[in-house]
Amino acid sequence: MTPTSLNFTHQPDRCSWIESAGQSSTDFPLQNLPFGVFLTAEDPTPRIGVAIGDQILDLLALAQLDLLPAAARTACRQTSLNELLAAGPAVWTDLRARLSELLGADTCAEPLRTQIQRCLVPQNSATLLLPAAIGDYTDFYASIFHATNAGKLFRPDQPLLPNYKWVPIGYHGRSSSITVSGAPVRRPAGQSKSPAAPAPVFGPCRQLDYELELGALVGPGNPPGTPVPLASAPGHLFGVVLLNDWSARDLQAWEYQPLGPFLAKNFATTISPWVVTMEALAPFRVPAFVRPAGDPAPLPYLTDDADAAHGGLDLTLEVWLHTEKMQAAGAAPHRLSSGSFASMYWTLAQMLAHHTSNGCNLRPGDLLGSGTVSGPTPDSRGCLLELTSRGTEPLRLPNGEERRFLEDGDEVILRGYAERSGTRRIGLGVCRGRVLPAG
Amino acid sequence: MTPTSLNFTHQPDRCSWIESAGQSSTDFPLQNLPFGVFLTAEDPTPRIGVAIGDQILDLLALAQLDLLPAAARTACRQTSLNELLAAGPAVWTDLRARLSELLGADTCAEPLRTQIQRCLVPQNSATLLLPAAIGDYTDFYASIFHATNAGKLFRPDQPLLPNYKWVPIGYHGRSSSITVSGAPVRRPAGQSKSPAAPAPVFGPCRQLDYELELGALVGPGNPPGTPVPLASAPGHLFGVVLLNDWSARDLQAWEYQPLGPFLAKNFATTISPWVVTMEALAPFRVPAFVRPAGDPAPLPYLTDDADAAHGGLDLTLEVWLHTEKMQAAGAAPHRLSSGSFASMYWTLAQMLAHHTSNGCNLRPGDLLGSGTVSGPTPDSRGCLLELTSRGTEPLRLPNGEERRFLEDGDEVILRGYAERSGTRRIGLGVCRGRVLPAG
Repeated sequence: MTPTSLNFTHQPDRCSWIESAGQSSTDFPLQNLPFGVFLTAEDPTPRIGVAIGDQILDLLALAQLDLLPAAARTACRQTSLNELLAAGPAVWTDLRARLSELLGADTCAEPLRTQIQRCLVPQNSATLLLPAAIGDYTDFYASIFHATNAGKLFRPDQPLLPNYKWVPIGYHGRSSSITVSGAPVRRPAGQSKSPAAPAPVFGPCRQLDYELELGALVGPGNPPGTPVPLASAPGHLFGVVLLNDWSARDLQAWEYQPLGPFLAKNFATTISPWVVTMEALAPFRVPAFVRPAGDPAPLPYLTDDADAAHGGLDLTLEVWLHTEKMQAAGAAPHRLSSGSFASMYWTLAQMLAHHTSNGCNLRPGDLLGSGTVSGPTPDSRGCLLELTSRGTEPLRLPNGEERRFLEDGDEVILRGYAERSGTRRIGLGVCRGRVLPAG
Repeated sequence: MTPTSLNFTHQPDRCSWIESAGQSSTDFPLQNLPFGVFLTAEDPTPRIGVAIGDQILDLLALAQLDLLPAAARTACRQTSLNELLAAGPAVWTDLRARLSELLGADTCAEPLRTQIQRCLVPQNSATLLLPAAIGDYTDFYASIFHATNAGKLFRPDQPLLPNYKWVPIGYHGRSSSITVSGAPVRRPAGQSKSPAAPAPVFGPCRQLDYELELGALVGPGNPPGTPVPLASAPGHLFGVVLLNDWSARDLQAWEYQPLGPFLAKNFATTISPWVVTMEALAPFRVPAFVRPAGDPAPLPYLTDDADAAHGGLDLTLEVWLHTEKMQAAGAAPHRLSSGSFASMYWTLAQMLAHHTSNGCNLRPGDLLGSGTVSGPTPDSRGCLLELTSRGTEPLRLPNGEERRFLEDGDEVILRGYAERSGTRRIGLGVCRGRVLPAG
């Protein structure tokens, strides 16, 4: 998806006949149309929906009214997005255009509006589920600022390893423990060892952290042994969600060598329910991160003119903390950081091309995490490890509380949005999770 | 499963009325009864079967004749083992007892035999599939001999890291690229960098290796946030397969820090099709590996009397190589190594208990790889990295060929079996894969 493929669905002056979609504060105006899976108390069938303002357009109901393009009809009747993800960009574009017509004030009149009205479900009466069956979840490490900051704390002598500027570093995460926004997160237990202690101890994690990430859902897969070239990678990326890669830093420091993080990460990963499509994000494409002078150019399989020209995403990503005390006092959450996805050293397309460069097969619904999104400035650091220098420099919150790491009862809220002059602002919704005490 | 739970299904003097199951060379006598999923040209429905001699007993056909215990009937009509795995040990034991009765010469007479005869499919006319839908695949590193040998080659200054004797080290592998024995493996491409070179290069892997492992299939899962105590872990382990963790050593050396192996491993993992149950292996339980004096005792959550007494498995595991030249000359494969699973530093139950100790949820069908099974002697080293000291000491094969790493056309064959006086020998079958040239 490139800025040159902007079409009427992106026009900033178009608006929906659904009133709440016109409010300036909404993440879900007509120009967004993110996909999710939901159910309601009245109808507990999981079904696909599209967020519009404070409503959900039920695509199963729409399919039953025969209002969807033929090529998307079967995929939109499923209980997860996987079949739609497999269908590929041509089907996605047609479907988006149709939905934009049906919901546009300029393109949809009575009696059709009344029909569609019956397919709307208020978001606050719906339960949102994981949008896809996620076969494999891969987590990258694509912010050089995060890699450098975190590296300093774990390896003061060698913060950034020699492979970093050549290899989009990634590793496999756990699929089973991915949950959708709202699910509480139990503080994990595990082994940790302080440098001075002769032996490790087992007990509740004392350095619980979040990581602010963007997650990308894979569209069509690739057969085993068949790499996806970088130029084709955009056609394999459906859309993005917010992702919280919960991390137990004390467990991580002790266990991670030589095979990488394991129990420090696999107890929980939370994603936001609404998948914002790459097509909706097309107006916010920017050039890929410009490497500082002296950095090597990527190897040819990771180099592509189009990717360099608009492989970046100008997406603002924020972390908010709502402590138990704030909740009790009725105080608003406090923003801990704000950064831009445009500062990532590797693009999503580079990550996908690298992932398949050895012939590894991806499947529709696979999830690629970007790694912690941290920028160059202190206020854009995407985890407490960085913000507090691994707990040595506690944060002071507006209500006087301090945080080195997360405490029980803390709710972490991720938000994301894109805005640019001449476009309509769109948002990713929220990704929230509250810490429960160790079991 | 403990040796005290041996029942009539283990009696070494019992034999099947199916002749091939009585041959001393078979891996699949009446005492084994491993589970798999297969189809045939005549009936392409994937269905569950049990190997007996050179035949497969079709459990779908058996269920249709109403010959299975009620509690197992629905699970045995599925196209994968997952539902049976979820059912748990009581159901597995009943089912095994019934199958042993139906196939036993002493327990099954006409006219039942003729009925069952109609449910048999010759193994050589069947295509074997992956036995389960594998949600998550975790690979451990449980041989201290492998960890030490491999560590020496990657980190000469510190072969065995300080956490090794405390933590059953593991990491998440890739589910999508797990295939069943027989599927060819395409040589991957990737980045590698020789120490002297100023920059990495991208090209076909030049240090392709196998790793001999045992894989365990998880039975009932555990809910998120709910660890499985070590004493309960055996009830969550259904059975084992042979596992080849194909590895690209040149890619691995360059990419693996700090987050672990990724593209060096995720292009292919091959498993054998027949899942040999822990119950069939009960006669071959042995004490867990006895730690050398001076090694720390495991922490309490990894300590259990029963596990220490019979958490080990006396299972011989072998690697055979069949090069293209050997194949062309009609020569037999050459055995590269033979070791015992009893030499593993951590038991399967310890791996599972550790995996869930942070609350990570396992699901039925999840696969736990043991890590390379290497013993203390040079002839028991389970990968070429160790056998050739990373290619510096080539192996000489009987036909005069040399191997530093795998070459195109090489077929790697894993075998495994258990034998002990007073028992019937049982085997794991084979796990084979042939290397195709880079694409």
